[in-house]
Amino acid sequence: MSAGYDLEAEIQFTLSALAGDDPGADFQDWWAERHRAGYFNVTRIPFAELDKWRFEPDGGNLVHESGRFFAVEGLRVRNGEALWSRPIINQPEIGVLGILVKEFDGVLHCLMQAKMEPGNVNTLQLSPTVQATRSNYTRIHRGANTRYLEYFRESRGQVLVDVLQSEQGAWFWHKSNRNMVVKVTEDVPEHEDFHWLTLHQVRALLGTDNFINMDARTVLSCMPFAHPRGTRGDAFSEALVRSYEHDPELALHPLERILSWLIEAKTRCEWNSRLIPLSQIEGWSKGEDEITDDEHRDVRVIAVSVEAGTREVTRWTQPLLAPRGVGLAAFLARPIGGVLHLLVQARPEPGLLDVVEMAPTVQLMSHERDGGPYVNDVLAARPGQVRYDAVQSEEGGRFHHAQTRYQVIEVGEDFPAEVPENYCWVTVRQLMSLLRHGQYLNIEARSLLACVHSLW
Amino acid sequence: MSAGYDLEAEIQFTLSALAGDDPGADFQDWWAERHRAGYFNVTRIPFAELDKWRFEPDGGNLVHESGRFFAVEGLRVRNGEALWSRPIINQPEIGVLGILVKEFDGVLHCLMQAKMEPGNVNTLQLSPTVQATRSNYTRIHRGANTRYLEYFRESRGQVLVDVLQSEQGAWFWHKSNRNMVVKVTEDVPEHEDFHWLTLHQVRALLGTDNFINMDARTVLSCMPFAHPRGTRGDAFSEALVRSYEHDPELALHPLERILSWLIEAKTRCEWNSRLIPLSQIEGWSKGEDEITDDEHRDVRVIAVSVEAGTREVTRWTQPLLAPRGVGLAAFLARPIGGVLHLLVQARPEPGLLDVVEMAPTVQLMSHERDGGPYVNDVLAARPGQVRYDAVQSEEGGRFHHAQTRYQVIEVGEDFPAEVPENYCWVTVRQLMSLLRHGQYLNIEARSLLACVHSLW
Repeated sequence: MSAGYDLEAEIQFTLSALAGDDPGADFQDWWAERHRAGYFNVTRIPFAELDKWRFEPDGGNLVHESGRFFAVEGLRVRNGEALWSRPIINQPEIGVLGILVKEFDGVLHCLMQAKMEPGNVNTLQLSPTVQATRSNYTRIHRGANTRYLEYFRESRGQVLVDVLQSEQGAWFWHKSNRNMVVKVTEDVPEHEDFHWLTLHQVRALLGTDNFINMDARTVLSCMPFAHPRGTRGDAFSEALVRSYEHDPELALHPLERILSWLIEAKTRCEWNSRLIPLSQIEGWSKGEDEITDDEHRDVRVIAVSVEAGTREVTRWTQPLLAPRGVGLAAFLARPIGGVLHLLVQARPEPGLLDVVEMAPTVQLMSHERDGGPYVNDVLAARPGQVRYDAVQSEEGGRFHHAQTRYQVIEVGEDFPAEVPENYCWVTVRQLMSLLRHGQYLNIEARSLLACVHSLW
Repeated sequence: MSAGYDLEAEIQFTLSALAGDDPGADFQDWWAERHRAGYFNVTRIPFAELDKWRFEPDGGNLVHESGRFFAVEGLRVRNGEALWSRPIINQPEIGVLGILVKEFDGVLHCLMQAKMEPGNVNTLQLSPTVQATRSNYTRIHRGANTRYLEYFRESRGQVLVDVLQSEQGAWFWHKSNRNMVVKVTEDVPEHEDFHWLTLHQVRALLGTDNFINMDARTVLSCMPFAHPRGTRGDAFSEALVRSYEHDPELALHPLERILSWLIEAKTRCEWNSRLIPLSQIEGWSKGEDEITDDEHRDVRVIAVSVEAGTREVTRWTQPLLAPRGVGLAAFLARPIGGVLHLLVQARPEPGLLDVVEMAPTVQLMSHERDGGPYVNDVLAARPGQVRYDAVQSEEGGRFHHAQTRYQVIEVGEDFPAEVPENYCWVTVRQLMSLLRHGQYLNIEARSLLACVHSLW
């Protein structure tokens, strides 16, 4: 991780990758400066060197001495006769993911943060204004105050978005975070780790690999305003714009039908999952520095030591979940009656509160083998069909080098509108309406929807 | 339970109680006939006499031999330093509660069922057309087919309501049922256990104690049509009608603010609950025929033997949860700007999926001591303030003689509109909008809302 790290090369690599979506020299200077100002060193350590973390003697869960923060526990899933178990992160508290927005000269700007996370592939990513667990902001870690938190915790602006949304149901037990957008008119001091970017600029940066972090993407997905005004003028762009603005009756299915379809899928799904002690999971082994599945395909539980800071360096150790490869999340997108429809999947994930949420057409964790009936439509897409394609990072505070390839694949009007029972064509307008409530779209679908917002 | 049971006296008692809300002689004859036709005998038995049920040797959960149906397990709740545990019903499958509706001569009618449940105080209650667990309708119990299920499982009509709603969060672990209303135009055969009643008649029957069962009430609460047209013409009725029909800006709080308020309450609540083996709950003891808390205040787990049938008698045994007294659920209702507002509470219940849902202003389980700041406003209400008052039964298939007193108490414009942080004034229109989605209103709030619908 820290071995052979070349700071200037990374800065150069990142900034050169930005070329097509460049928010300007001012931003580049700030980004390079933040890279140089921060010290960040992540090293793998054996579990025995974890400080303030221990495996509980009774049950073997990996817990923090405060009893808070998060824990690595066991999860057992039963589906009829089938039974499997795995490690899972249990973090039973609601954090805040908030973007502060403000108009400058009539243009909406977002206050974005340059933030380092121990699991990031590239140290620094662009994050929401506030990204804080409840343990963070109630100061269990005795760290610094969370900057700008007061705008989200007190009524200091107009709340544009406020909704509880789930996170990875394969890796988290019942986790949800509060996604917020608050608009202010007052002057906001701009701390050196923060930078105002237009919403347009932030969305354009979604075209760059591993630049906008997961927490920013989920908040961006919920922003129902300033959506694309197709500028390319081709049929796809026109259908995309209509997908945001159509009359309700132009959607293939009314919203009520879509809700029924999702409930029907929940009813069919007989997955029953529960937490069990970590020591009771089967098919997994604990070594000195990792917990692995016996097939060596799934995530590993590892431990890292982190040194980070600017003027003052802090040190901590923590566990991380480390997947072994890159996941895939793709929407098939098809114009139906001139309105672009996205094909969503009702997908069970054992850690989701209600087990089933709407997911991308194809969602493959790096260890999964069965991506469903549309994998080949994604893998064999011609270049002209690929409307969005980037590799993005998942939460670097809990996952080590977790990356997912996000794609939007256009299919033509000859593509079957008839789909298997776990799939449904929906418009962006319908998804935005559902995003006012939690537990409809999973984190991968929301990440990908944020990318759809960037398609102008 | 069966001791000293006098069938004719019960029929007479029920029908005389109907006097004020009488749907007619035809209905009375049918109801009395259903009473006489059915044979139903419920007897308490020791746990050792349970057939097909057993306490698991490992962990002590009370389970059915099929591994399905439901189980009585342990629940442990942690709230900061506080820790408590109790028995809870785990039934990880989604059932259907459905009312079939049809217009006769332009008037909406509901196909209601006369249904016996082992825990009912009065044997027979008026139930939805379909009330079936998934185990029921996939025939785990090898009983008869569920009548009329095809209207809800196949597309045989217009789906007016379809939403997953929670049930008692104190007694059920993560239970939700599919609440449905399906409208048909075709001829529907009327089986002898079923009777068409107008929606007006069904709602009027909510004025009778223990007549409309819990499953019917929750479905009725979600029916957003044919709402009251205040006929009394007093200020309360006028404010009530406006509560259904007002312009959005006439509500005290916009809907988005109410959603934020609920999320804020969820964020504050640090209850963390999980299933544990029943043998590990503390402060409870298992005897030969009941599991009780050491203070003898809370529900007991008991076992019953049931003989039931019409022509053919079937027998089964099962556990039930038996509360020791009558619960209380009351809305304070206050006109604000001429629009009636109900005071809802953000209330944690350990078995709810997301722990906190909106509850009545006052909700007291029979064993609870602390009903919050508004208990006295309910208990000391003058008769003229009491707009609704009836004792209703909770689910007789899982609970033994579980009753709740439901009340709507009118307070005047001098009543403080400022409320503590866990409370919020909302209109009926706003609640109906939230009821299109699950996990906003708990079962007691929905039951009570169904009663509000009856206030014409």
